[in-house]
Amino acid sequence: MPIDPRVAKLVKATVCKTVYRWFESSPWDQPARDAAARPLERHMPPPTMSTPPSPAAPDIARRAALIERNLAELLTREELLGLLTAGEPLRHYIGYEISGRVHLGGGLVLMAKVRDFQEAGVDCTVLLADWHTWINDKLGGDRDRIRRLALAYYGEAMRASLLCVGGDPDALHLVLASDLYADPARDYWATMIEVAKHTSVARMQRSVTILGRREGEQHDFAKLIYPAMQAADIFALGVHIAHAGMDQRKAHVIARDVATRMRINPLHDAAGTAIKPLAAHSALLPGLLKPDRWPVPPEERAEALAAMKMSKSKPRSAVFIHDSPDEIRAKLRGAFCPPGEVELNPVLDWIEQLCFGLGDTALRVERTPDHGGPVTFSSVREVREAYASGSLHPMDAKAALADRLIDRLEPARRHFADAGRAAALAEMESLTA
Amino acid sequence: MPIDPRVAKLVKATVCKTVYRWFESSPWDQPARDAAARPLERHMPPPTMSTPPSPAAPDIARRAALIERNLAELLTREELLGLLTAGEPLRHYIGYEISGRVHLGGGLVLMAKVRDFQEAGVDCTVLLADWHTWINDKLGGDRDRIRRLALAYYGEAMRASLLCVGGDPDALHLVLASDLYADPARDYWATMIEVAKHTSVARMQRSVTILGRREGEQHDFAKLIYPAMQAADIFALGVHIAHAGMDQRKAHVIARDVATRMRINPLHDAAGTAIKPLAAHSALLPGLLKPDRWPVPPEERAEALAAMKMSKSKPRSAVFIHDSPDEIRAKLRGAFCPPGEVELNPVLDWIEQLCFGLGDTALRVERTPDHGGPVTFSSVREVREAYASGSLHPMDAKAALADRLIDRLEPARRHFADAGRAAALAEMESLTA
Repeated sequence: MPIDPRVAKLVKATVCKTVYRWFESSPWDQPARDAAARPLERHMPPPTMSTPPSPAAPDIARRAALIERNLAELLTREELLGLLTAGEPLRHYIGYEISGRVHLGGGLVLMAKVRDFQEAGVDCTVLLADWHTWINDKLGGDRDRIRRLALAYYGEAMRASLLCVGGDPDALHLVLASDLYADPARDYWATMIEVAKHTSVARMQRSVTILGRREGEQHDFAKLIYPAMQAADIFALGVHIAHAGMDQRKAHVIARDVATRMRINPLHDAAGTAIKPLAAHSALLPGLLKPDRWPVPPEERAEALAAMKMSKSKPRSAVFIHDSPDEIRAKLRGAFCPPGEVELNPVLDWIEQLCFGLGDTALRVERTPDHGGPVTFSSVREVREAYASGSLHPMDAKAALADRLIDRLEPARRHFADAGRAAALAEMESLTA
Repeated sequence: MPIDPRVAKLVKATVCKTVYRWFESSPWDQPARDAAARPLERHMPPPTMSTPPSPAAPDIARRAALIERNLAELLTREELLGLLTAGEPLRHYIGYEISGRVHLGGGLVLMAKVRDFQEAGVDCTVLLADWHTWINDKLGGDRDRIRRLALAYYGEAMRASLLCVGGDPDALHLVLASDLYADPARDYWATMIEVAKHTSVARMQRSVTILGRREGEQHDFAKLIYPAMQAADIFALGVHIAHAGMDQRKAHVIARDVATRMRINPLHDAAGTAIKPLAAHSALLPGLLKPDRWPVPPEERAEALAAMKMSKSKPRSAVFIHDSPDEIRAKLRGAFCPPGEVELNPVLDWIEQLCFGLGDTALRVERTPDHGGPVTFSSVREVREAYASGSLHPMDAKAALADRLIDRLEPARRHFADAGRAAALAEMESLTA
C-alpha cells in the first residue's frame, strides 16, 4: 500500500528539521585540534526571549548611560529609552571584515563598548563577515581561507580584546556570516533583496563611501550590494542595536530607513510594533602617522583627522592587540606627536580614547627628576593642558601611553601565546604584512 | 569515553548529506493532490555527462541548423560549431518570470526553439524564476503564492506549450529558482556576487532596460541585482546555451563578458577550457493592438514594432495558449491589420512566426466563392504578396490564422481541462486580469 504523500511529507519535514538542528548545534567547521577545547560559540542568539519584569527608572537610567557612554552618535536616544522602558531584552551586533590583524580601534575601542553593552544587560554578537571580506577582495579573495581565519584568528582576537577591557568573552556570540546566510530559517538573501527593493539605486550609490571609495559608477557592482548585505545582517540577526565605527553609519541608516517596511525578518518591539534598529557609532581611532600634508590648513583639519584613520596596510600607523611590548614602544616612539599641538595629535587622542576612555581614572607619567619627576594626570583635559603649555614633553607622553597599553594588552598577548592561535595570527600576518 | 570529534564530524556529515539528498529527491512542495500523478521534474540536469563518441560532420551540420533555426541572434555560431565538433553534451536553459498567463510568444515561439534544441540532442531546462517575479513585484509580491503557481500553473503551461509544437515535455527539466538557490552544492549567491564583482556599476545600470524601464537611478536597487541573478542562473545551472527573447539579451551578454573570469561555477568545455555560454535569442512576437500613434512615421517604424510587444496587462493584445476557440477568433477579429500594410501588421507577423515559423508548409484560407474561393499559400512571402496586392482580405487572413491557431493549441486546451490545472490557471487569471 503506498504511503499517503502528506504523511510522507510530514515525516520527512520532521526528520530533516531535527537533523538540521543537530547539524547547527555543533562546532561544525572547527578544526579538529580545537574540538577538545572550549568551542567558539557559533550559535545564533535566541530569536525570542521571555519578557522580564517591568524595570525601575533608576535601572533604566543606569543602562542607558552605559549604552551611550563614549559613543560619537546614537540613533536615537528616544528609541533606546522606549525599548528600555518597555523592558525589551536587547540584542546587539557588530560586524567585522576579516581583513587583517585586529588593531586597537577595532579591538579596544569597539570591544569596550561591547563591555558597556554587556554591563547594561544587552546580548552581544560579533558577526565575522567573511562574505564582505571576499567582496572587498581581502586575503586574496580566498573564501575558504577567509572562513577559516575568521574563526581561528578573528574570533579569538575579539575574545582577547574583550578580555583586555574587562568584558565577558564567554557571553559573546561569534557568528560567521557564512553560517547565517546558509541557515534556511533566517532567509538571509531574501532579506537582502527586500532591503534592496526598499532602497533606490541613487541612495545605494551614495552609501558606498563607507568603503573608503569615492561615489560613482567606477567600482564593481558587488561593492554596491555590500551595504544592502550589511543592512540585511541586522534584520537576519534580529538585533536592536547595530554598532560600528562612524565609517559604517551609512549602511545603518539604510537599515533604519527600510526597517518599518520590511516583511521578511522585520524588527518588532515586545508589543509587536515594527521598530528601527538603534545605530550606535564609536569615533574612529586615528592612526599614528603624520598626515600627508603638514601643517594642515585650518579649514581642512577635520578632513585630515578623518584621513588619519589607522590603516591595516600601514602597520606603523596602528598598534595591534597582540603586539609585543617592544613593538608597542617602538611604534609609539615613531608616532606623529607635534610639540604643543593638541588637536591633530594622535598620541593625545589615544590617551583620551584608550586610557581615560576605557575607564582609567589616572595616567601616570614616569619621568626622571631632571625631566620634572613623575606626574599623575587624572583627566585628559589635564594632559592636554600640560601638553599645550610644554610642561609635558612628547617623549614622556608617548612613553606613558606605551606603558599603559602594554599593561592593558597583557591578556591579549597571553591569549595568543597559545600555539594554535599564534599560528593563525602568523598566517594572518603573512597575508597582510 | 568521549567520541573522537573527527569521527563525530564524519558521521554527522554523512547522515546530514544522506538526509539532504533524500529531501531533495522528492517533489517536496507539490500540492498533495498532485502527488499521485506524475510529479513535475524538479531535479537539476546532471552536472557532468559522459563524453559521447566523436560526431560526424553531417550530424554536426544538422544539429547546428536545428539550433540556429528561426533565431534572431546566436552568440556565436563559431562557438556552437566548436562545441558540436568537440562532441560536447549540450545543456540549455530558458528562464520565465511567473508573471501571468502564458501567451503565444513565451509559449509557442520559445518552446518551438526548445523542440528544435531537443531534436538537436540538447538537454533543455525551464527555470521557473520565482525570485525574479518577486523582485519585479508581480503577483502581489507574495512569495509563497508565486512559488506555488510556478509549479501548479507555469510549469504545466510550459509542458503544454511544448506539446503543441511537437516537443517532448517528459524530457524537459523544470527547475524552480528557489530550489536552485537553496541548494548548497550550487553556491548560487556566491555565484551572483562573483558576477557582480566582474561587472561595473555603470554596466549593470545599462542592462536594466531589459526590464522595460529606462536607464538611470530612479528604480529600486533590487532591479539592478536582477540581471546579475540572471547571469548567475546560467553558471549555477551550468548550461551551455542561454535562451530567451531578444529583450533579455543584455543579461546574457553580461554572463558572456564575465564567463571566463568566473572561479565559482565556471563553464568548461570537455577539455577543461573556460568557455562563454552561447546566447540564443528569438524575435519577439508583436501584440495584436494598434500602435499608440498611427500612421507611424517611417523613421519610427522599428521602434513602433518593438513597442507592439504582447503585454500580459493588455489581454486583447495577446492570445494565451489555453484560450478557447471563441476567444482566439474574437481576439483575431479585433486585431490590428491595416489593409495593404505588410510591415507593421501583427497578423502577417503571426502567420510568419506561428504558422510557417513553427514548421507549417502551407496556410489554407477558406473563402466563399464570392470572396475568391479557398486558397492555399505555401510560404509567408506568398501571403505578404497577396496581402499587399489586396487579393487577400484582412478578415480572411485573420480567419485563416485563427483556424490554424485553434488547431495548433488543441493539446494545451486539453492539458488544462484537468481540474487541478484549470484551478491553477483560474487563480493566475484572477491575479492578472
